[in-house]
Amino acid sequence: MSIQMFDLAAAEEDRRFSPFCWRVRMALAHKGLAVETVPWRFSDKERLRALGAGETVPVVVDGARTVSDSWAIACYLEDAYPDRPALFGGPEARGLSLLVKHWVEQAIHPAIVRLVLRDIHDHLAAEDQPYFRASREQRFGTTLEAVVADPEGARKALDRALQPARATLSAQPFLAGEGPNYADYILFGAFQWARAISPRRLIAPEDPIFAWRERMLDLFGGLARQSRAYPG
Amino acid sequence: MSIQMFDLAAAEEDRRFSPFCWRVRMALAHKGLAVETVPWRFSDKERLRALGAGETVPVVVDGARTVSDSWAIACYLEDAYPDRPALFGGPEARGLSLLVKHWVEQAIHPAIVRLVLRDIHDHLAAEDQPYFRASREQRFGTTLEAVVADPEGARKALDRALQPARATLSAQPFLAGEGPNYADYILFGAFQWARAISPRRLIAPEDPIFAWRERMLDLFGGLARQSRAYPG
Repeated sequence: MSIQMFDLAAAEEDRRFSPFCWRVRMALAHKGLAVETVPWRFSDKERLRALGAGETVPVVVDGARTVSDSWAIACYLEDAYPDRPALFGGPEARGLSLLVKHWVEQAIHPAIVRLVLRDIHDHLAAEDQPYFRASREQRFGTTLEAVVADPEGARKALDRALQPARATLSAQPFLAGEGPNYADYILFGAFQWARAISPRRLIAPEDPIFAWRERMLDLFGGLARQSRAYPG
Repeated sequence: MSIQMFDLAAAEEDRRFSPFCWRVRMALAHKGLAVETVPWRFSDKERLRALGAGETVPVVVDGARTVSDSWAIACYLEDAYPDRPALFGGPEARGLSLLVKHWVEQAIHPAIVRLVLRDIHDHLAAEDQPYFRASREQRFGTTLEAVVADPEGARKALDRALQPARATLSAQPFLAGEGPNYADYILFGAFQWARAISPRRLIAPEDPIFAWRERMLDLFGGLARQSRAYPG
């Protein structure tokens, strides 16, 4: 029986845009594990509660095991499937991947949000839009429109925030060296999030990060490239 | 014959403050390699040139091999002494440590500089001070005094920049998980730099980063703790 993964969907069911879900989608492919993704919308919280799985996706159901939270899922997959390709590559790389997770969430996501927050809203199913607007406007303390009011400033902030990744990817093909590990999927999730719901180009083609993202889009037979998105 | 390491010194020869040198000092101790540090001052550039070793420290001389640049030295030590304790812990952790290096240099060092740049100057040997002032004022495009004019703002910027490390160290004792690897030494170098030349306290005792720094100061028989510094 394949693993089930609850995956955040936009109005179009095949537009999958959660950065956290993309991490897990790539992790499952890295492990070579078959997955059936279940499109999930913000208004389906009851469905997750029924699984005893909190209120947010990704949630993975693997036989009798239900696991929530992308980091917990990655650790679960690594520990439950040790004979499959390593998602981290040892305890030190797992430790440092947690730092990468927090760096991406603290430094990269906030810059991308300032570019795409309104685009996310506009791509959601109609029944999800009021929840999304209310919860995000409470979180940011202002309107969606005010968050995205300075795209040029946001792009510059993103450019600066990405500098450590840019310098790293000038020296080696992946964040984890010669091949991708879960840390690459964490950063890639941020780009796949934007690519799924915004026509805005985040990185210039001459940026080493652009070439890395192309490599990521090519992985696993073009898994991420084939998902509904803007050409970005 | 023990390894020689050229190590940046202040006016007092035993005040060693280079963040890059501290990375290597800790790496040598991690490998259990004996080292003779050679105090070096900015005005001694001719001495490095004579070794064919560029113009900056750290420089390590290991028998017939001379290696410059802290990252190159770490990779050299790992590859030349594979039977000693692993400095990275596999190729993925080495890859991610390069990202940590760039993150520390792009996000953490610039915030610390705004707190300690004038203190560095004031601790240097008299013959190093004019070079230091001229080269740094050219790099920053302003005076040393202007760079450190807003310590409260700098402290807040440092606090924000450290958030990924703080979140990581709330969940595990070291950046690399259960034990330190070279990535820990990279971040620690930044704190040891400040601690060596500034009485300013950078982190509050209740910060998880403070407890981590205490663990780092205790490593290798208190190697870093015993070096001349402020209590910080």
